Amino acid sequence: MQLSNIYNTSLSLLTDLYQLTMAYGYWKNDMAEQEAVFHLFFRKLPFNGNYAVCCGLETAIAYIEEFCFEESDLQYLQSLKGNDEKPLFEKGFIDFLRTSKLELDIDAIPEGTAVYPHEPLMRVKGPLWQCQILETALLNILNFQTLIATKSARVCRAARGEAVLEFGLRRAQGIDGGISASRAAYIGGCVATSNVLAGKLFDIPVKGTHAHSWVMCFDTEIEAFEAYATAMPNNCIFLVDTYDTVEGVKNAIEVGLKLRQRGHEMTGIRLDSGDMAALSITARKLLDEAGFEGAAIVASSDLDEYKIKELKDRGAKITVWGVGTKLATAYDQAALGGVYKLAAIRDKDTNEWEYRIKRSNTPIKTSNPGILKVRRFFEGKKAVADVIYNELFEKDIEGFVDFDSEKKVRISSNWKGRDLLQAIFRKGKLVYRSSTIHQMRAHCIQQLEHIGNVEEYKVGLEWALQELKEEMLK
Amino acid sequence: MQLSNIYNTSLSLLTDLYQLTMAYGYWKNDMAEQEAVFHLFFRKLPFNGNYAVCCGLETAIAYIEEFCFEESDLQYLQSLKGNDEKPLFEKGFIDFLRTSKLELDIDAIPEGTAVYPHEPLMRVKGPLWQCQILETALLNILNFQTLIATKSARVCRAARGEAVLEFGLRRAQGIDGGISASRAAYIGGCVATSNVLAGKLFDIPVKGTHAHSWVMCFDTEIEAFEAYATAMPNNCIFLVDTYDTVEGVKNAIEVGLKLRQRGHEMTGIRLDSGDMAALSITARKLLDEAGFEGAAIVASSDLDEYKIKELKDRGAKITVWGVGTKLATAYDQAALGGVYKLAAIRDKDTNEWEYRIKRSNTPIKTSNPGILKVRRFFEGKKAVADVIYNELFEKDIEGFVDFDSEKKVRISSNWKGRDLLQAIFRKGKLVYRSSTIHQMRAHCIQQLEHIGNVEEYKVGLEWALQELKEEMLK
Repeated sequence: MQLSNIYNTSLSLLTDLYQLTMAYGYWKNDMAEQEAVFHLFFRKLPFNGNYAVCCGLETAIAYIEEFCFEESDLQYLQSLKGNDEKPLFEKGFIDFLRTSKLELDIDAIPEGTAVYPHEPLMRVKGPLWQCQILETALLNILNFQTLIATKSARVCRAARGEAVLEFGLRRAQGIDGGISASRAAYIGGCVATSNVLAGKLFDIPVKGTHAHSWVMCFDTEIEAFEAYATAMPNNCIFLVDTYDTVEGVKNAIEVGLKLRQRGHEMTGIRLDSGDMAALSITARKLLDEAGFEGAAIVASSDLDEYKIKELKDRGAKITVWGVGTKLATAYDQAALGGVYKLAAIRDKDTNEWEYRIKRSNTPIKTSNPGILKVRRFFEGKKAVADVIYNELFEKDIEGFVDFDSEKKVRISSNWKGRDLLQAIFRKGKLVYRSSTIHQMRAHCIQQLEHIGNVEEYKVGLEWALQELKEEMLK
Repeated sequence: MQLSNIYNTSLSLLTDLYQLTMAYGYWKNDMAEQEAVFHLFFRKLPFNGNYAVCCGLETAIAYIEEFCFEESDLQYLQSLKGNDEKPLFEKGFIDFLRTSKLELDIDAIPEGTAVYPHEPLMRVKGPLWQCQILETALLNILNFQTLIATKSARVCRAARGEAVLEFGLRRAQGIDGGISASRAAYIGGCVATSNVLAGKLFDIPVKGTHAHSWVMCFDTEIEAFEAYATAMPNNCIFLVDTYDTVEGVKNAIEVGLKLRQRGHEMTGIRLDSGDMAALSITARKLLDEAGFEGAAIVASSDLDEYKIKELKDRGAKITVWGVGTKLATAYDQAALGGVYKLAAIRDKDTNEWEYRIKRSNTPIKTSNPGILKVRRFFEGKKAVADVIYNELFEKDIEGFVDFDSEKKVRISSNWKGRDLLQAIFRKGKLVYRSSTIHQMRAHCIQQLEHIGNVEEYKVGLEWALQELKEEMLK
């Protein structure tokens, strides 16, 4: 196995086997081309939070655009055997896969948008087998990036406008776990990453200076700082805790003064251990007294939104937050439980849409029927409610049943509505133009500002959709 | 951005920026070629467990073999700016990167081996800048795969020899989070994965039949089962909980009997919700009464080692365990805190090795000096102790100081020792031949059988190494 073999491979087999056995079953039963609608959504906000940030669409678009079975994929599928040691798939199906092209209509919510439970982040409509075959990859991509963008937004909110750097690559879940996490963290609000490849691929700013190992390669800390300052005078953030943090700050100041004489400015210092609230206050005092009022104090060491809040509450004078493992792996909730459910299928005989729901004893797990959209309502600039509705009902939205209170809410005459789902593919053709990653990030930050009191935010099913669902559950 | 751009890219920039700024600093200070030794190790067993399973070496080898800076990488590095808007890197350094080849000596512990805190899973020796530049990617790869192989071994031990299938792709952390997780889960003991691409790339058995959506596409459950059985009679595991589990089992039996008449055998049924201990007992009874004693009962739904143990303790008649999210993301501890520390550097003037340790107020965080190896001692087939020693001391190992008890232990005369680290690269040339993934998995299972009472297993520093460390800490 060569790494290039992993990463140069077609990714069309990045799916659960049962998607292919089902596709085969649809094909054998003459149902493969029957039109269906699936929605991708999550049921519960991550991190016991008040919002999630939708992310991963551009990666999903790239996945779909490049989707095709290569000969090696088809050969592999042909080699699979059932419990009688005979092939799982008939050759006719392999030929069907070889010659098929995706012809789906796909709608999705743009990246960086605040989203809520049960809202379709993506809607996939078209031939049943094609809807099915994309399920696993779409869930993989959107679940993870949405999770990390949400975590990032939470961390950035805790930092209250101060810069957050994403440092998670070394503990991320695999190579793409790192790459995707850096992308999603930036969209969620981080200002930069340490991950150079993510910087190159996505145009995310990259940051970094030196580690403990740099200091340990020299006989003394001050020699190490001086050698670094000589080599790279325009990028000096000295890591001051290799031996003793306060001594480290003093050494940084000494080297910073020499640097200034040579026409360069020390960018700052970094704390990586100890009582960082107390140490940052001491460091700030020492730096200010020495004339380094502009020097940043970067902190890193197992940070997340809770630790940042705690440090801020204790008066920490930290100005830049380096957040690694707990952001890049969403450590306290390492997966978003997004699902992908059939909601309607066109009857082969009548050509009418038939609605479908997945019942469950747990009401939250019962899916919603229809061909769904989400409309966000605004009062001035402030978003106040999201309404999930069935686009087959042609009436205006008069009201909705709020998920939390289960009460009927009437749309106020001064609310203005805007649909969240955008057309992405039509008959397999890309019709959407992504904004830049910087625009997605700005969109995310701006959205979260305008969702005023997130705890009062209402989300629910439009009245007629709620009636349809109740009818079907009887 | 196209997905192919991510996955066809050189991965040499898959690193933290500070590795490159440090490499630059070494180069500017004429230290780049100074010989150094770094060890990659973790300090604490994951999941509060008694062992970890080393994994990821083959991926790391592929990464190192393919390591080279492409022109687009170098252009990107040249575009980076410091705080004065001038380039971070001099052109001479870019040329140095362009023409350099890795010339490292790398030793590592083979995949599937049980490992313990402070043991170098990998030792990297050679030019300082080269050791540094690989740090992030090696940590990313080995941290994650070791984490997942360990989780998999725990889950498989809980299943007490019954088959465990890995089903995590849809919730895994990105594309490679899924691919690597499937690989590591297999090495840790799973018998198969649902991830078809991992099956193709790594020769792991793949499994899967159908989802709820299959059943929902038909008017009745029995129609759905019949249609599936007609399409793919040699791969029938019916998911029985879409509407009512017990009715579902009866429908499966009905279709299973017809299948048998046609000369095929139903493989089994799958439970995905409800009280799975009780339901599996009922299902077993119904299946046995109908003559399906050989039919598997697969369970899936948020399983991990704790739930499996609980279900087994309650007498569940489950024979195959499908484990997804909690395995593929190591949900209860989503990162292994592996680190990579400088342990020795050759003095430029004297050409002698100088030892290095990173001190810390937390003793567990103080690193070990030397050019380290690990020797595992066996009493018969049973492994009893691991000793970390410095290969520069030429004496035989007489004893070690146990990390837990801090007591001196003498090597017993009937213990036989075997070194765990193998030569992987010499002067940049691959000298190691990996075993197959099936051999790694067998090695893992066999190792864990021979580590008898894992709680009594001893790990420590060889006496002279312990003395050296204490000397240096003074």
